[in-house]
Amino acid sequence: MSITFSLDKSTRTLLYQQLAEQIKSAIVRGELTEGMQLPPVRRLAAELGVSTTTVAQAYDLLATEGVIGGHVGRGTYILSSPLTALARARAPFGGESQASGLASTSKRLDWAAGWLSGLTFQASRAGQLQWLTQRALERWGDPATMLNLSSGYPDVNLFPIERWERSMARAGRLLAEEAKQASSLQVLQYGSTLGDEALRSYLCQYFRRCGFQPEPQEILLTSGNQQGLDLVARVLLSPGDLVFLEEPAYLAALDIFEQQRVACHPIPVDEEGLRLDLLEQALEAPAARPRLLCVVPTAHAPTGATMSCERRRRLVELASHYNLLIVEDDYCSELYYAETGCEPPPALRSFDREGRVIYLKSFNKLIFPTLRLGCIVAAAPILARLVEGKQAFARGTSLPLARALLEHLSDPAFEEELCLYRQEYRRRRDVLLDLLEEELAGLECRWTVPTAGFNLLLQLPPQLQEYDVIEKAADRGLLLVPGQLFRLENGQRRCPSVRLTFADKPPEQLREGVKRLSSTLRALLHGRGSSQGRASPDLFTAV
Amino acid sequence: MSITFSLDKSTRTLLYQQLAEQIKSAIVRGELTEGMQLPPVRRLAAELGVSTTTVAQAYDLLATEGVIGGHVGRGTYILSSPLTALARARAPFGGESQASGLASTSKRLDWAAGWLSGLTFQASRAGQLQWLTQRALERWGDPATMLNLSSGYPDVNLFPIERWERSMARAGRLLAEEAKQASSLQVLQYGSTLGDEALRSYLCQYFRRCGFQPEPQEILLTSGNQQGLDLVARVLLSPGDLVFLEEPAYLAALDIFEQQRVACHPIPVDEEGLRLDLLEQALEAPAARPRLLCVVPTAHAPTGATMSCERRRRLVELASHYNLLIVEDDYCSELYYAETGCEPPPALRSFDREGRVIYLKSFNKLIFPTLRLGCIVAAAPILARLVEGKQAFARGTSLPLARALLEHLSDPAFEEELCLYRQEYRRRRDVLLDLLEEELAGLECRWTVPTAGFNLLLQLPPQLQEYDVIEKAADRGLLLVPGQLFRLENGQRRCPSVRLTFADKPPEQLREGVKRLSSTLRALLHGRGSSQGRASPDLFTAV
Repeated sequence: MSITFSLDKSTRTLLYQQLAEQIKSAIVRGELTEGMQLPPVRRLAAELGVSTTTVAQAYDLLATEGVIGGHVGRGTYILSSPLTALARARAPFGGESQASGLASTSKRLDWAAGWLSGLTFQASRAGQLQWLTQRALERWGDPATMLNLSSGYPDVNLFPIERWERSMARAGRLLAEEAKQASSLQVLQYGSTLGDEALRSYLCQYFRRCGFQPEPQEILLTSGNQQGLDLVARVLLSPGDLVFLEEPAYLAALDIFEQQRVACHPIPVDEEGLRLDLLEQALEAPAARPRLLCVVPTAHAPTGATMSCERRRRLVELASHYNLLIVEDDYCSELYYAETGCEPPPALRSFDREGRVIYLKSFNKLIFPTLRLGCIVAAAPILARLVEGKQAFARGTSLPLARALLEHLSDPAFEEELCLYRQEYRRRRDVLLDLLEEELAGLECRWTVPTAGFNLLLQLPPQLQEYDVIEKAADRGLLLVPGQLFRLENGQRRCPSVRLTFADKPPEQLREGVKRLSSTLRALLHGRGSSQGRASPDLFTAV
Repeated sequence: MSITFSLDKSTRTLLYQQLAEQIKSAIVRGELTEGMQLPPVRRLAAELGVSTTTVAQAYDLLATEGVIGGHVGRGTYILSSPLTALARARAPFGGESQASGLASTSKRLDWAAGWLSGLTFQASRAGQLQWLTQRALERWGDPATMLNLSSGYPDVNLFPIERWERSMARAGRLLAEEAKQASSLQVLQYGSTLGDEALRSYLCQYFRRCGFQPEPQEILLTSGNQQGLDLVARVLLSPGDLVFLEEPAYLAALDIFEQQRVACHPIPVDEEGLRLDLLEQALEAPAARPRLLCVVPTAHAPTGATMSCERRRRLVELASHYNLLIVEDDYCSELYYAETGCEPPPALRSFDREGRVIYLKSFNKLIFPTLRLGCIVAAAPILARLVEGKQAFARGTSLPLARALLEHLSDPAFEEELCLYRQEYRRRRDVLLDLLEEELAGLECRWTVPTAGFNLLLQLPPQLQEYDVIEKAADRGLLLVPGQLFRLENGQRRCPSVRLTFADKPPEQLREGVKRLSSTLRALLHGRGSSQGRASPDLFTAV
């Protein structure tokens, strides 16, 4: 085995975590494949110059994740897992994902195998998520009856499509009229990279609901918070920089920071959001200060927790005290429904007097996911840099799209629609909470109680393995994604968990989904032990 | 001076070019500021362990670009130039660009100066272009009478805005109807990262005009060729990889590759496009093979040259022979007007039997620049990687926007509009060519004759300096950008040049623009020599 592991004693990440992470990367890169034997603990420890405990802990961690397995005296092997499947899917002519119609063309593409083999690009979590979904659907066989209880999606069927039809028509008409009045179509020409001024001006008013009112030139339109965060990472961070993230965290953020090769340090959240005591503790530690801190203060992904007003105020104070820059990700603060008619807590940015908060706003989960529109609000010197990046990588954001959104947001009907969304999502949350209480009674499960957004985090009985649960759930027509996708995996053994989404399902589907979940968990806990479960040839253990 | 230059003898780039480039970067980063003295040639050569010729050549190159200046016996100094101005504009509280309303807020932003000072992000060409435009406008004082003869833009006033109004309305109506028929709004939900299937299916037919017909799953929608190329660079290239580029080249490509830290090697173009003899010569050289070759075969930016059919065929053969991947940038092949009613040469991709051509299509220059829609067509294994990247960095592309474009392209009126565009752009090209013939008679100028697109490249009399010309032109109300922005500057002293755009100007404005240009050149050539020109306190030489 010619794979080199390089462990760095100077970072915060413990050696065994680094080793486990590097073994997983080697699997995704296809350097370690299913069935390969890992070196014995003692030999690898000697080669790496670390203690046998370090290697044993790494192997142990990987075993609990279903990545490796073994029997005493017979060695440790790479198991079939989402990681090996991902590696196959990424090989030029690999897995099933490239099946249809390519058999005939693959010969002429022989050159590509070599060409693609050296690529360093990696976005492992999005890839895993996609693959897990595909595999589970194949396993169950019938997409129509498969229930995805873990999508993280809003319910597009609540969207007023007729009003959007009018918004598009009106936006087109007003654009044409504006042009006629100006006797010029200059508005269609390359202009400011910031994006359409009409929408930016409107957004200044719009953000009053969040407790702040920027100037139009402090707003840069984007295609959503993924593009916004990617821009922040590329322009404001360099490889090796340190970032503090919530734990668990937004999956896309983890991929974006991985690609930018920045170091991530997790700060746990509780039901009031980021644990400021642990944040302060981390900030007081002798290691390097983070370049920035990323938070989702309302409807934290994936727990649904919302940071209290008091904690928000205090967090901005801490940012000032410790000279931090904060990225605030707001993808649905309008959907805060803790109590009927309540206002969401003001944005972090509303407490910010020093321009330390970069506020990312997406309208994609609020309007509909294929809209692709959002913005960044930041202080002028910071925004100037982000504009430079946007100009270089993608230029401006679509004018006709901006105008259609402007029509849609500025219609008084929009506020009524928001009320409806909040009411309906809250109702579905309550249905799910009741179902969990009923159906999971007696199982050692715990769950968060969201006050906004689309999902909650369900902690599974501690003796179960996440991958066992999702494979057995797939067998029962239930699609789940493992909590591991949202964790940095930098340390302590975490309680197994899954994200549960209630927003995109009417109550009867939630009921059916929780029944399938309950039967999955009970089968694993009572029918047969989880370790026997792993031994049988199953979704992730094809022999 | 604590600036470190590090010269690498193992690369293709000559040492003096590396040094000149690093001095320029230090200026843009603000480490070398206006008026600072550079070390004497002999001392710097000793410090760097290179010959005095190397340092002298570097200083010489920078002097011809107006970046440094000096007098014998009095040392060499950093001059005020677009680079120093860019550095000022990028400083947190620097230059005039952040004037309005920030005086009061800048104190509370004190922390940002330190925070931003360490950033490594750079997109120097887009930044320079923006700054040059702004400065020239300030210099002339009256935006209404300033003539921009160098925009590179199409004429948005030719666009049929009423038809776009109908396209938007119809797209919205069809979306709503489709949803009603399906009794579901699932089309609005997150779906394939490839983007709207209806548009992708239509594009398969559309690309027949370019000589190929992809499958819908070989198409990934983007916001345009800048996002497309950025995705290619991030996913398919690693820092240090070698890329072959046309010389001169697309400005945005140069910034994107700079940001990805890949090495670029220029291959000159002539009136038939890329010089294949020079390409072969470079490929036979003992240095490393390029990871990819980027070309704009139709309406090459900025010369307007179109690669002949025979050369296209041969280029694809070479790619196969040398195991190259080609990126084909098509931003306006529909606007080929060499002869009335002629068809453009088929796309490189149409000759490609091995999936070696990644075809980038933008509709932004064809429909209108603030549309923001395009696509990538590539063989399945390559596209799969690009999709992974798009999923991680920005997810899908806007559905309502895709549907509006689909309506617009599929209307029979679209073909008539293309005829009109071609006719009008060809007419304007002819007007410009006649004007150049008339007005620049007797001056040692040469120009390309475009057969497609919006602009040509004008070579200026060799004794003039580009920055002298654009500053004097600004004084006469004429905005020009230096050819340097499109060059890799990796070697030979190039003839000074400027891009001239004819597409976005009616004939009377072209006439006025060429008059201003002619009077600028004549003043520099006859009125006073170009070296005296530099001595006076002018646009780029404030003392």
